[in-house]
Amino acid sequence: MKKSLVALAILAAAGVASAQSSVTLFGVVDVAYAHGSGSGAGSSSKSQLIKNGYNSSRLGFRGTEDLGGGMSASFWLEAGFAPDSGTGEASNTNNQNPSATALNAGDTQRLANNQGLTFNRRSTVSLASGLGELRLGRDYTPHFWNQTVFDPFGTNGVGTNQTLNSGLGGVTAVRASNSVGYFLPGNLGGFYGQFQAYMGENNKNGAVTEKDGSGSSIRLGWANGPVNVAIATSRTKFARTGAVAAVAATPGNVGAAAVAAGGGDVKSTNIGGSYDFGVAQLMALATRDRVDSATAVTGKGALIGGLVPLGAGQIRVAYSTYKTDTAAAPKSKKIALGYVHNLSKRTALYTTFARVTNSGGATQALNGATTAANNRSTGYDFGIKHSF
Amino acid sequence: MKKSLVALAILAAAGVASAQSSVTLFGVVDVAYAHGSGSGAGSSSKSQLIKNGYNSSRLGFRGTEDLGGGMSASFWLEAGFAPDSGTGEASNTNNQNPSATALNAGDTQRLANNQGLTFNRRSTVSLASGLGELRLGRDYTPHFWNQTVFDPFGTNGVGTNQTLNSGLGGVTAVRASNSVGYFLPGNLGGFYGQFQAYMGENNKNGAVTEKDGSGSSIRLGWANGPVNVAIATSRTKFARTGAVAAVAATPGNVGAAAVAAGGGDVKSTNIGGSYDFGVAQLMALATRDRVDSATAVTGKGALIGGLVPLGAGQIRVAYSTYKTDTAAAPKSKKIALGYVHNLSKRTALYTTFARVTNSGGATQALNGATTAANNRSTGYDFGIKHSF
Amino acid sequence: MKKSLVALAILAAAGVASAQSSVTLFGVVDVAYAHGSGSGAGSSSKSQLIKNGYNSSRLGFRGTEDLGGGMSASFWLEAGFAPDSGTGEASNTNNQNPSATALNAGDTQRLANNQGLTFNRRSTVSLASGLGELRLGRDYTPHFWNQTVFDPFGTNGVGTNQTLNSGLGGVTAVRASNSVGYFLPGNLGGFYGQFQAYMGENNKNGAVTEKDGSGSSIRLGWANGPVNVAIATSRTKFARTGAVAAVAATPGNVGAAAVAAGGGDVKSTNIGGSYDFGVAQLMALATRDRVDSATAVTGKGALIGGLVPLGAGQIRVAYSTYKTDTAAAPKSKKIALGYVHNLSKRTALYTTFARVTNSGGATQALNGATTAANNRSTGYDFGIKHSF
Repeated sequence: MKKSLVALAILAAAGVASAQSSVTLFGVVDVAYAHGSGSGAGSSSKSQLIKNGYNSSRLGFRGTEDLGGGMSASFWLEAGFAPDSGTGEASNTNNQNPSATALNAGDTQRLANNQGLTFNRRSTVSLASGLGELRLGRDYTPHFWNQTVFDPFGTNGVGTNQTLNSGLGGVTAVRASNSVGYFLPGNLGGFYGQFQAYMGENNKNGAVTEKDGSGSSIRLGWANGPVNVAIATSRTKFARTGAVAAVAATPGNVGAAAVAAGGGDVKSTNIGGSYDFGVAQLMALATRDRVDSATAVTGKGALIGGLVPLGAGQIRVAYSTYKTDTAAAPKSKKIALGYVHNLSKRTALYTTFARVTNSGGATQALNGATTAANNRSTGYDFGIKHSF
Repeated sequence: MKKSLVALAILAAAGVASAQSSVTLFGVVDVAYAHGSGSGAGSSSKSQLIKNGYNSSRLGFRGTEDLGGGMSASFWLEAGFAPDSGTGEASNTNNQNPSATALNAGDTQRLANNQGLTFNRRSTVSLASGLGELRLGRDYTPHFWNQTVFDPFGTNGVGTNQTLNSGLGGVTAVRASNSVGYFLPGNLGGFYGQFQAYMGENNKNGAVTEKDGSGSSIRLGWANGPVNVAIATSRTKFARTGAVAAVAATPGNVGAAAVAAGGGDVKSTNIGGSYDFGVAQLMALATRDRVDSATAVTGKGALIGGLVPLGAGQIRVAYSTYKTDTAAAPKSKKIALGYVHNLSKRTALYTTFARVTNSGGATQALNGATTAANNRSTGYDFGIKHSF
Repeated sequence: MKKSLVALAILAAAGVASAQSSVTLFGVVDVAYAHGSGSGAGSSSKSQLIKNGYNSSRLGFRGTEDLGGGMSASFWLEAGFAPDSGTGEASNTNNQNPSATALNAGDTQRLANNQGLTFNRRSTVSLASGLGELRLGRDYTPHFWNQTVFDPFGTNGVGTNQTLNSGLGGVTAVRASNSVGYFLPGNLGGFYGQFQAYMGENNKNGAVTEKDGSGSSIRLGWANGPVNVAIATSRTKFARTGAVAAVAATPGNVGAAAVAAGGGDVKSTNIGGSYDFGVAQLMALATRDRVDSATAVTGKGALIGGLVPLGAGQIRVAYSTYKTDTAAAPKSKKIALGYVHNLSKRTALYTTFARVTNSGGATQALNGATTAANNRSTGYDFGIKHSF
C-alpha cells in the first residue's frame, strides 16, 4: 500500500509564489522510554513510552506576509501530539476547568483515545511594525516564559522545574485562549517585554462568576551578551464560589484540593536570570503563586541549575523546590541530571535522571509512578528528538 | 525552543513532481474582538475573541491531477478551526442530530476543549470532464450557496443574513455528509447548476426513521456580466416520531422547540440575485423553510443589501428578516453595517455593527448575548483576516 | 470566498533546504457507494457512502534526515480519516479497550461527529543504519502484515479476508501504541524480519491487570523473484479478571462475548505466501488466534486468492473462512470478486462483490447490513481512489 502513496511536491500555484509569501511546515517528534518508581505503602512504579522528554512534539504551519512600509502580517498554527499513540492534545476554550463531573474509567479512556489534533500550543494571527507586534488568539501567557527560559530542562521531561509539577498557577499557567497580546519591538538595546489580556467569555449577567477565566499578564526583561534577566506577573480572576475550580487538581500538594474547592483569583509572579560563563550557563528562578480562596494559599518555587556544553552534547543539571503554606506545609525538592547528544542540528539522543523528595504530606512522584506521603520517587528516561 | 524548530522546505520526491501533480496548502485565520448586548429582564451581554467575523478560519489541502483526454481527478480536504482557542470543529456523520441526551456543563466544556480538527468544511474526491464534475464526500448543500453568495456578509459575522441565525433548515442547511454531487460544466453561456443526493445511512429494517437524514438538493443559476441570479430547493427526510430531531434547537424562535420535538421532512427553497452597478453591487434573497411536523411550520426569510467599493476597502450593508407561522408569529429583523479595509490581497481589517429587533416572542440576540422576548440586541466586532 | 484563498507555495526557509532534509506530504482519498443486505428474521440492509473500499484514506507527513556514516533519522505521521464525513479516526493509548460503560445513542453519535484527526495509522520516529532500523511510537504490529500482504483485497473493503471481520485478535490485531520495534536491514538476500515490544503502561502495583495491553510480536519472511513467504506470531497480555476486555466485541461470533467478558492473554499466529505466475499472483494465508480466558477459545482463519492483471486494471478474487471452537462452532465463509481500473498511477475506479455464509450461529454481515444467525449476507461497492 505504501508504494501506491505517490509522494508529491507542494508546488507553487502559478504566479503566486514570492519570497515574502510562504508557508513553513515544521514539527518535532520526541519519544522516550521512561521509568518511574515510588516508595512507601501503596506506591507503584511505571514503565512507559512517553512524549516530550526533551522537546515538545508538535506539527505546525506558519508564515509571514510583508505588507510594505515596515508592516507585516503573520499566522502561527501549532498542534501538540503524543507520538507514542498518535493522539492530539486538548485545548481550553474559556481558561476555566470543566465543572467537576467525575468521568468513569471507560469515558476517560475514550476521551484519551479519541483526542484529535488541535492547535493547542499556539493559534495566532499578528500585525507587526516598528512599534511592536499585536497578536490575537491562543498563546503562551507572558508569565510562563521565565519558567521555560530559566529552566535547564525547558519545562520538558522528568527533570523539569518542580514548579511545573506542583504549581498552583491553574489553567493559565502555560497558555491562555481568547488573548490579545502586545510585544515590544526588538530594537530596544536588549530590553524586551510583552503584555497580554485574556477573556473567560462568560455571559455578563451579574453572577459572581462572570469574570472567571479573565485576566492579564506582563513580562519585562533585559538580555545583553551573557546576561538575561526577566520578571513577570499575572492575575486570573475566579469567584470564590467553587462552582468553577480555580486550579487543576495537583496531586501531591496537600493544599491543592482545598484550593480547588474554594476557587478565588490566581496571582503568579516570577523572576529569573541566566549568565553564560562559556564553560557553563547558570540559571536561577523564583516563583510565587497565590490563590485568593476563602483561606488564601501561597505556593513558592525556586530553581538553580545550569547547562554545560560538552563536545556535540550538553549536560543539564537543576535543583528545584516547591512548597505551599497550608497547615502541613507540604514541600517537594527535586534534583535532576541529564545529557543531550546531538547527532545533527535536527536530531538528538538524550537521557535524564531525577529524584523528588517529599515532606509535609506531599506525594509528588515522577514518570507516572505514585509514592506514599513524605516518600521519595525516582525517574529516568532515554529518548530521541527529531525536528523538521 | 522555537529556535530549534528548523523549518524545512517541502521538496519534490525526485522524479515525481510535475505541473499537473501538485498539492496546495491553503488557509484563513480570522479573529475579532466582539461584543453583544441584550435588553429586558434576564438579558446578558458578552465580550469575546471570536472566530470568523469576516471569513471562515480553515486549513486545507487540495490538488488536481490531469488524467488526459479532458478528464481530471481532484481532492479537497478543508478543516475549520477556532483561532481564539485552537480547537477544531465537529462534522456530522449521518445528517441527523444526536438524540436528545442532555450533557452537563462539565461534559459540554470537555467536548469543546477536546474538539480536534476534522475536514468538516469539505472532504471530497472528484472526477471532471467536459460533461461536468462528479463529486463524492462531504460538501456544501446546493441550496446553501444562495445564502452566502447573495449575502453582503457572506454568512459570516454579526451582520449575516438573519436566516442563518433563525432558520429551520436543520442539519443540512449548510453541508451534508455522504453526498454524491453533479456540477454542470462551466461553458454554458453563464448558465450554471448542481444537483446533490445525500444519505442518512440508517439500517433499512422497516422502521419509520430508516430514511432520516437522506435527501437531495438542486441549484440552477445564470451569471452574465453584472447579473447573477439563482434558485435552489432541497428536501431532507425525517420521520415525525421525534426519535431523531429534525432541526437543531434554534433559540429565539418560538416554533423551533415544537418542530424539533415533532420531526418531519425539512424542505428549503430560496432565490437570490445580484446586480453590479459599479458604484455598488445590490443583492436580494428570499428563503422559505417548511418542516412537515404533525403541525407543519413554515419559516420565511428575506434580505436586501449591497457592497460599495471604497478605495482599498468595501462598505457592506444589509437588512434581513426571518419569521415563522407558529401561533405567536415570532419575527426577527436585523440591520447591519460593516467596513472591510484590505491591507493586501491576503490581509484585511474589518468592523461590523448590527442590531436585531424581535417580536412575537422571538429572543434572537447577537455575539453571545441573551435578550428578553420581543427585545432588541446589539452587536459589533473589530477583526483581522489573514489568508495563506 | 474560495477566490480569496490565495494558494501559496511552501518555500524553503533560506539556507536550510537540502536534498536530505525534506518533508513529504502524502495522502489517499478513497470513497465508494456501498450496499449490503442480510437475510432471515430481523435482518436489515444498508446503503452508504463508505471510506476505504480499495485503499485506506489518509493524510500524512514524513521525512528522512541523512546523519552521515550510513545513519539516518526519520519520522512518519499518518492520520486516517473518513472522506464521506470528513471526520478523523480514534487511536488507542494503552492497547486496551475502554472498560464497558455503555454509551447511549446520543453520546455515540456525538463521539462520531466530534472525532478529530489523530495520527492513528502511524506515528513514529526512527534511527536506521546498515544494522537495521529502530522505530519508536505507534505502528502496525508485525503479525498484522501477513493479513494485508497475502490478501488480494489488502484488508480493505467488502472483499477482505474474513479473519479481519471475525478475528479474536483484539486491540493489537492491527496496530500497537507505545511500541519499540526493530527491523532487519534490507540486504539479507531476500530474508526480512521485524520484532516489536509494546507496553500497556499500567501502574505496577501488584494488581493482576498490571500487564494488560503489554506484549510482543515477531515476523520473519523471505521474498525472492516470484516467491514471498512469511510467518508471524504475537502475544498480548490480559488478566482473566474481565476488568479489561481482552478483545473487542465482534458481533457475529458466538464465542466473542464470552471471550470479551473473560479476558486472558491473546496469542495470534499466521503464515502466508504468494507466487507470481505472471498471468496471475496466487496467495494463501492461515491464521490462528487463541484467547486464554477461563475456558480458552481458539479461532482459525484461512484464505486463498489471487490477483490477475488485465490491461490497465486488475481482477481480484478470494475465498476466506473463520471459525471458533466454542460450543456451537460458529463459522463464516466469504467469497469475493473485484475489479480495479487504473485511470493513472494515482487514480483508480473499482468495484467489488462479496457474499458471506454463516453456520454454527454466526451472524457476520457485509457493508453495515445485519443478518439472522446461519444466514447469508451480500455486499457490493463502486468507488474511486485518488492518491497524492
